[in-house]
Amino acid sequence: MNYLSKWRRKWHQFLHDEDLKQRIYSIVFESDTPKGKLFDIILIGSITLSVLLVILESMHIFPHSAYLALRITEYILTFFFTVEYLARIYCLKQPRKYIFSFFGIVDLLATLPVYLSFFLHGSHYLLVIRAFRLIRVFRIFKLFTFINEGNLLLRSLWISAPKISIFFFFVLILVTSMGTVMYMIEGNVPDSQFNNIPNSIYWAIVTMTTVGYGDITPVTPTGRFLSAVIMLIGYTIIAVPTGIVSATMVSEHKKQEKRRCPRCHRDGHEFEALYCKYCGARLKQEKPETPEKERRADERF
Amino acid sequence: MNYLSKWRRKWHQFLHDEDLKQRIYSIVFESDTPKGKLFDIILIGSITLSVLLVILESMHIFPHSAYLALRITEYILTFFFTVEYLARIYCLKQPRKYIFSFFGIVDLLATLPVYLSFFLHGSHYLLVIRAFRLIRVFRIFKLFTFINEGNLLLRSLWISAPKISIFFFFVLILVTSMGTVMYMIEGNVPDSQFNNIPNSIYWAIVTMTTVGYGDITPVTPTGRFLSAVIMLIGYTIIAVPTGIVSATMVSEHKKQEKRRCPRCHRDGHEFEALYCKYCGARLKQEKPETPEKERRADERF
Amino acid sequence: MNYLSKWRRKWHQFLHDEDLKQRIYSIVFESDTPKGKLFDIILIGSITLSVLLVILESMHIFPHSAYLALRITEYILTFFFTVEYLARIYCLKQPRKYIFSFFGIVDLLATLPVYLSFFLHGSHYLLVIRAFRLIRVFRIFKLFTFINEGNLLLRSLWISAPKISIFFFFVLILVTSMGTVMYMIEGNVPDSQFNNIPNSIYWAIVTMTTVGYGDITPVTPTGRFLSAVIMLIGYTIIAVPTGIVSATMVSEHKKQEKRRCPRCHRDGHEFEALYCKYCGARLKQEKPETPEKERRADERF
Amino acid sequence: MNYLSKWRRKWHQFLHDEDLKQRIYSIVFESDTPKGKLFDIILIGSITLSVLLVILESMHIFPHSAYLALRITEYILTFFFTVEYLARIYCLKQPRKYIFSFFGIVDLLATLPVYLSFFLHGSHYLLVIRAFRLIRVFRIFKLFTFINEGNLLLRSLWISAPKISIFFFFVLILVTSMGTVMYMIEGNVPDSQFNNIPNSIYWAIVTMTTVGYGDITPVTPTGRFLSAVIMLIGYTIIAVPTGIVSATMVSEHKKQEKRRCPRCHRDGHEFEALYCKYCGARLKQEKPETPEKERRADERF
Repeated sequence: MNYLSKWRRKWHQFLHDEDLKQRIYSIVFESDTPKGKLFDIILIGSITLSVLLVILESMHIFPHSAYLALRITEYILTFFFTVEYLARIYCLKQPRKYIFSFFGIVDLLATLPVYLSFFLHGSHYLLVIRAFRLIRVFRIFKLFTFINEGNLLLRSLWISAPKISIFFFFVLILVTSMGTVMYMIEGNVPDSQFNNIPNSIYWAIVTMTTVGYGDITPVTPTGRFLSAVIMLIGYTIIAVPTGIVSATMVSEHKKQEKRRCPRCHRDGHEFEALYCKYCGARLKQEKPETPEKERRADERF
Repeated sequence: MNYLSKWRRKWHQFLHDEDLKQRIYSIVFESDTPKGKLFDIILIGSITLSVLLVILESMHIFPHSAYLALRITEYILTFFFTVEYLARIYCLKQPRKYIFSFFGIVDLLATLPVYLSFFLHGSHYLLVIRAFRLIRVFRIFKLFTFINEGNLLLRSLWISAPKISIFFFFVLILVTSMGTVMYMIEGNVPDSQFNNIPNSIYWAIVTMTTVGYGDITPVTPTGRFLSAVIMLIGYTIIAVPTGIVSATMVSEHKKQEKRRCPRCHRDGHEFEALYCKYCGARLKQEKPETPEKERRADERF
Repeated sequence: MNYLSKWRRKWHQFLHDEDLKQRIYSIVFESDTPKGKLFDIILIGSITLSVLLVILESMHIFPHSAYLALRITEYILTFFFTVEYLARIYCLKQPRKYIFSFFGIVDLLATLPVYLSFFLHGSHYLLVIRAFRLIRVFRIFKLFTFINEGNLLLRSLWISAPKISIFFFFVLILVTSMGTVMYMIEGNVPDSQFNNIPNSIYWAIVTMTTVGYGDITPVTPTGRFLSAVIMLIGYTIIAVPTGIVSATMVSEHKKQEKRRCPRCHRDGHEFEALYCKYCGARLKQEKPETPEKERRADERF
Repeated sequence: MNYLSKWRRKWHQFLHDEDLKQRIYSIVFESDTPKGKLFDIILIGSITLSVLLVILESMHIFPHSAYLALRITEYILTFFFTVEYLARIYCLKQPRKYIFSFFGIVDLLATLPVYLSFFLHGSHYLLVIRAFRLIRVFRIFKLFTFINEGNLLLRSLWISAPKISIFFFFVLILVTSMGTVMYMIEGNVPDSQFNNIPNSIYWAIVTMTTVGYGDITPVTPTGRFLSAVIMLIGYTIIAVPTGIVSATMVSEHKKQEKRRCPRCHRDGHEFEALYCKYCGARLKQEKPETPEKERRADERF
C-alpha cells in the first residue's frame, strides 16, 4: 500500500519534472550540445546498422547459427528506438503535434515491425522503413544549404500537387480504358498474357510509363498498333508533370532572386532567411506558401 | 383514336413543360441543391460500380452462376444511364451543344456498348469508357482549385498543340524511315523478328520512346549500332515536348502572376478570377486564349 | 547533221525559255494557283502511295503475281519524281542553292533507291525516305501556324545544338568507359552476353537511355550494382538536354512576347510577323538568330 | 663518386632549368605554336588509337599472333603518356594544383592500368578511361563556343548539385523500402527472382528509372499493383531533376541576357566575355558562382 502510493508519487513527479524534460529535450531534439550531437550520431549509426542487418539477413549468406545473434541485435536496437520514441513524447509540451507529424509517424513505424513479427512471420523486414529516419542527417550535420534546398523542393512539389493529382487521375482513367481495349483485342489469342483486365491495366501502366518490362507484349498487328499509340502518348505526356514542376521552380527561383536587402539592395537571399547575408539588415518577411505545420515539422524534428 | 390524340397531346405538353425541365435541370446538371448532390453521388457510385464489375468479370473468379447477376446489374445500370442521358437532352434549351460536347459524347458512349453487345459478343467490355465520366467528380465536390488547375493544364496543352503535332509528325516520319532501314539490315537474319516493315516500325517506336520491351531486339553489329543511334535520338528529343510544355507553362504562370488588383495592387490572381481575392475589387478581364466552346463545355457539364 | 543542229538549237532555246521556266516554277514551287495546288496534291498522294506500297510489299501478303504490278507502279512513280526533280532544277535561277538545301537532297534521295535497286537487291526499300517530302504538307495546305511553330522549334534546337553536342560527347565517353568496366566485371561469366566491348557499350547505351530491352542483363552482384549506378545517372542526366531546350524555349517565348506593336502597343506577335495582327502597323524587325540560309531553305522549298 | 656528384648537379640543373620548362610548357599546355598544335594532334590521335585498340582486342577477331603487336603498341603508347604526364608536372610551377585537378587525375589514370596489368590480369582494359582525355579536343581546336556552353552547363549542374543530391538521397531511401516490401510480397513465390533484398532493390531501381529490363518481374497481383505504383512514382518524379536543371538554366540564361554593354547598351553577352562584342567597350565583370579552382582547371589544362 505504502509502496504503491510512493511509486505513484514518484511517477507523478517524473511526469512533471520540467528540469529533466529540458535535459532530455536538449539531447534528443537538439544537436548543438556535445551530448546531443553524440546521441544523434549514435542514432544514425544504429539506424544504418539495423537497415544493413535486415538486408544482410535476406541474403542467406550467414551460417544458421548466426541468426540468433542477428535477432538479438535487432531486439536491442528496437528497444533503444522505443525508449527514444517515448523520450521524445515525454519531453515535449505538445506531444500530439510530434506524434502526428511526418517524423513522428516514421519514428513509430520504425519500432512497430519487430513487435509485429511476434505475431506475423516476416514482418520484421518492414523495419527498413527506419531508413526514412536518415533524412535527419542533414539537420544533424548542419547541412543547412541542403535543408534550404530540400524545403524549396518540398514547397515546389506542394504547390504543384493539385496539378499533378489531376494529371494522375487522367492517367489512371486512360490506362484503365486502354488496358480494357487491349484485353478485348489480345485476350483471345492462345496463351495470351492479357488474360484479364487487371493484367492488361498493369501492362498499360508498364507501357505508358515507358518502363517496358516485356513480360506482357502484344503479338497481333492491331495490338501492336494500339501499343505504339500508348507509347507515343506516354512519351509525350511525361512533358506534363515535368512542365508543371519546371514552371513552379522557375517561379520560385524568381521569387528568391527578388528578395532584396532593404539596406544594401543586394538580392538572392534564401526564402527562409531573416537577415541579409551581406550586411545583416533585417529582411522583410514574405508569407510562406506551405502550410505552417508542415514546415515546422520538417525543421524541428 | 381518342387515346392516341390524348397521348399525343400529353407528349406535346411534356416536351414543352418548362417547369419540369427546370426541375430536372437542377437535379442532373447542378449540384447545389440536396437533390442534385444526391443524384451526383449516386451517379458516381454507379459509374464506379459498373467499371469495377467489368474488371471483376474479366478475372473469371466468380462461379458460373454469378454471371447472370452480373449481367442483370449491368443492364440496370445501363438503363439508368440511358434515362439520365435522355433527361439531360430533354431539359436543355440547346441540346445540340451538349450532344457534341466532350461530356455529351462520353455520356453516349457510356450507354452504347451494352446495346452493342446484343449483336457483337464481348463489346460490353467497352463500357469501361464510363470511367471518363468520373472527371465530373471535381465539379461535384466543389474542388474548384483542381478545376482551375485542370483548366490551366488544358489551356497550356491547347497552346502547345500545334508545336507538339509537328513534333509527332516528325517522329512518325523518323520511325518509318528507321524501321525500314532496320528491316533491310536485320530482315534476312534467320528467325528475325524484323520480318516485315510494320513490325520494324513498331520496334522503332518501342525503341525511340525508350519503352524497350525486348520482344524484338537487334542481333547484328550494324543493327545494334543503328539501335543505339535511335535510342540516343529518342533520349534527346524527349526534351522537345517537355521544353514546349515547360515554356508554355512558365509563360502562363507569369501571366497569372501579373494579374493585379487595380485597387489593392496585390497580384497572383487566378486566370479565371473575376474579383480580387484580397479586397474584392473587380479585376480587369483578359481574353482567355482557349476557344470559348471548349471551356464552357468543361465548366458546365 | 541538220537535225542535230536543229535539236541543239531547240535545246538551247528550252534552256533559256524564261516564260516556260516561270510557268513551271508557279506549278512546282507555288501552291496559290489552281494548277500549283493540284500538282501539290497529286505529289503528296504519290508520295503516300509509294511509301504505303513499300510497306505492303514487305508484308508478303500479296500473291506472287501481284509483285509485277507493284514494281511497275514503283517505276512509274519514280519516273514522275525524277521528272519533277529535273523540273525543279530547270526552273530555278540558282539551282545550286536548291540542290544542296535540305529538301533538294531529300528530293534526290527520293528517286535514287529505285535506280540503285537495279544493282543492289533490296535497296528499293530505301525509298521510304520519300516520307520526308511529306513535311511540305504544311506549306501546301497553308498551315502557317504550324510553319511558324516549326520554325520556332527549329530555331530553338539550332540555338541549343552546341550545348547538346557537348552533352552527347560526354555521354559517349561515359558509355564507352562504363561498357568496358562492365565487360571486365561480367565478361568471364559463362554464356555472358557481355562477350566483347562493343556489345557492352551497346548495353550501356540501352541502359543509360532507360530503354532497357533486357536482351543483355547483368547477373553478378557487382554488375547489378554498377547497372543501378548507370541507370540512376541516365535517369538524372536526361534533365540536361531537357533543361537546355526548356531554357531556350522560355527565352524564345519571352522574345516573342516582347515584340510589341509601335502603334497599338499590343504584344504577342510571332517572330516572323511583319505587321501588327491587331492594327496592321509595321513591326520593327529583329535580327533572326538562325543562319539566313537555313531559314530560307525551309520556307521556300 | 665524381660521376655521382656530376649527375646530381646535372639533375639539379635540369630541375631548375626555367628556359626548358618554358619551352616544354608551350608544347604540352599551349596549342598556339605550331609545335604545341602538332603535339596536341598527336596526343589526340594516340588516345583515339589506344581506345580503339582496347575495343578491338576484346572482340577476339584478330589471329592469335597479332596480340603481341597489339600489346607492344599499348606499351609504346603508355610510355608516351607517362613521359607526357611527367613533362606536365615538371614544367609547372605549382604541380600540386595540376595533379589534383580533374584532368591531372585523368592523365594519371590513363597510364596506370597498363602498369597494373603486370600484376592484375585484365586490368589493362581500364585504359579506356583515356577517352576522358578527349574532352581537351574542344580547347585544342579552338571551339570556344563549345567551351563556353560547356562551362555554362557545368555551372548550371554545379548550382543544381545540392538539390539533386537531396533528390538522390530520397530516391535511394525509397527504392530500399520498396525493394524490401517487394521481397516480402514476392520472395516466397517458387523460382522468384526476388530472392534477396539487394536483388529487390536492384529491381526497384530498374523499375523506378523506367529502364525495365524485364529480367526480374512481379507475378503476383499484389506485386504487380505495387510495381505499377513504383512506375507511376518514377514516371512523375523524373520531373524533379528536370525541373531543377531547367529552372537553373532559365535563371542562368536570364543572367547572360542581362549582361549589358555600358557604352552601346546592347545585351546578350556571354558570361565569360570581357569586352562588348558589338562596340568593344569593357564589360563590368560579375562574380562567377563556380569555385574559382574548378573553372581554372577546366580552362587551362
